[in-house]
Amino acid sequence: MDMATTQKPHERLAEALAADLVAVNALIRERMSSDHAPRIPEVTAHLVEAGGKRLRPMLTLASATLCGYGGPYHIHLAATVEFIHTATLLHDDVVDESAQRRGRPTANLLWDNKSSVLVGDYLFARSFQLMTDTGNIRVLRILSDAAATIAEGEVLQLTAARNLSTTEDIYLQVVRGKTAALFSAATEVGGVIAGAGDAQVRALFDYGDALGIAFQIADDLLDYLGDTAATGKNVGDDFREGKLTLPIIKAVAQATPEERAFWVRTIEKGKQVEGDLEEALRLMEKYGTLDATRDEANAWAERARAAILTLPAHPVRDMLHDLAEYVVARLN
Amino acid sequence: MDMATTQKPHERLAEALAADLVAVNALIRERMSSDHAPRIPEVTAHLVEAGGKRLRPMLTLASATLCGYGGPYHIHLAATVEFIHTATLLHDDVVDESAQRRGRPTANLLWDNKSSVLVGDYLFARSFQLMTDTGNIRVLRILSDAAATIAEGEVLQLTAARNLSTTEDIYLQVVRGKTAALFSAATEVGGVIAGAGDAQVRALFDYGDALGIAFQIADDLLDYLGDTAATGKNVGDDFREGKLTLPIIKAVAQATPEERAFWVRTIEKGKQVEGDLEEALRLMEKYGTLDATRDEANAWAERARAAILTLPAHPVRDMLHDLAEYVVARLN
Repeated sequence: MDMATTQKPHERLAEALAADLVAVNALIRERMSSDHAPRIPEVTAHLVEAGGKRLRPMLTLASATLCGYGGPYHIHLAATVEFIHTATLLHDDVVDESAQRRGRPTANLLWDNKSSVLVGDYLFARSFQLMTDTGNIRVLRILSDAAATIAEGEVLQLTAARNLSTTEDIYLQVVRGKTAALFSAATEVGGVIAGAGDAQVRALFDYGDALGIAFQIADDLLDYLGDTAATGKNVGDDFREGKLTLPIIKAVAQATPEERAFWVRTIEKGKQVEGDLEEALRLMEKYGTLDATRDEANAWAERARAAILTLPAHPVRDMLHDLAEYVVARLN
Repeated sequence: MDMATTQKPHERLAEALAADLVAVNALIRERMSSDHAPRIPEVTAHLVEAGGKRLRPMLTLASATLCGYGGPYHIHLAATVEFIHTATLLHDDVVDESAQRRGRPTANLLWDNKSSVLVGDYLFARSFQLMTDTGNIRVLRILSDAAATIAEGEVLQLTAARNLSTTEDIYLQVVRGKTAALFSAATEVGGVIAGAGDAQVRALFDYGDALGIAFQIADDLLDYLGDTAATGKNVGDDFREGKLTLPIIKAVAQATPEERAFWVRTIEKGKQVEGDLEEALRLMEKYGTLDATRDEANAWAERARAAILTLPAHPVRDMLHDLAEYVVARLN
């Protein structure tokens, strides 16, 4: 049996980048320490050692590797990206009042909201120290722009919640903020630190951007398709929380007056009764919005694959290609 | 009547730096905008246009001016410092569950904690974009280090709350985090961007550090001296909240077993009854800790004055000198 065909793409990436990942993990552990406040590494360890896939740092390592970089600053950039991601998770769980993440109690539940807010701030500051270590103004520009896009997307998501006038454009902006901005920054800085040419850097950005969008659209769709085991969420969680994701936005756009009243009651006013989720799914089926959403996820994954294939042949390039296929495979 | 003698030092600074401050305010307004999320400038404007003294940005402008800088990046650095300060205030008010700041309702009360957390994150990101605009890696290092020290100090303050084993060293670390780290970064980057020599940059750092510590010790002491009009706080607020500031730390260190039981009950367990504040004040008087705290504030102010006087003669230098006198004048 050929291991390459049975392993998942991110597992193959982790194997190809194993030595770099060891260095990234060591740097993360070193920089999450605090001379004075032991609460900081406690809270951070709870998240960064919870067995996440290190997908974002791997995107940076893979991009730098593809572009022939010999190090050492791709390690710093990969740790930067993981710190920004971890800080965002800490603050997200406070904002969403979440009690669970990856099947474990959240930091805000184990400690308190205060610790999550302040330790998140510490990790943001640490991430800026790490990127400053590279001495490369261009990667600082890319990553500080990404941090602003992430925060803007989170605020936009907050104000768009339960708002039926949310358009597909606003949804895309939220998705770029919550997911794609960090993916595309992760791949772009890998190319920049390696001194790659403009066309390659642009292709790496496009790959990360499209991969992140495909990933998030797929995640939002799975909330209705009901693969509970894969997502760790119950079917219809987003509906119950009044979140406007693509399947609903598309159904609202085509709603009859009577259907619109249903969406106003269930999403805008949040007054839901038994059977509402089934009615919502029926309306999504009626307008084919689940299929249309799947098509969009596939189209973004296809864009990601096309972008990465413009780079020179390399085993890691093919793993990134397969990764873009993998994030939507669970939909098909 | 000589205006220079009746105006307060920060008012004279504002007059001397008026043109630069106009530019800083314009840049702040430009950068607090958001293409997609109008909530961001709303929340930010509530704080940055609330009539604060712009003390921290003035420290940067004054330091750059003293060192002969012709611009333009001191404007960016001053705006950076104000954004970091504003982001910290937004997160502080969430952590402290504050309802008022500068006599007005806090953002977390007017909007919600979520908006305060996420808009704070946006302003942090914006501050890193602004400092990246300077293209100067050394100021990026100073400011990202300061951001880490600030967050670490906040976490330390959180874990030191109601903890009677808090030492004067830990108190100093908290004070550096919550106040002095941004003051010293503000003055240091002003010198660095102007290309000042090491001795001058070091003196500017020492000035900001000592000024910030004097300022915070004085603020904590005023909580017990009771100048309600000057502080906007009631006498003994810190005692009621179980905050370990210098007057209490010094009294706890010398406490008899019976007195220690009093501190355990009132601070550690937070069980306070009528007359406890008066008893706390009596114990502080008994050991002379209010006077000893005043002496420390004065000593730090004196260090700040000595540091700034090592710079070449300049009207702005003398205003900074007087500012260090002014922050402790309200104690004497």
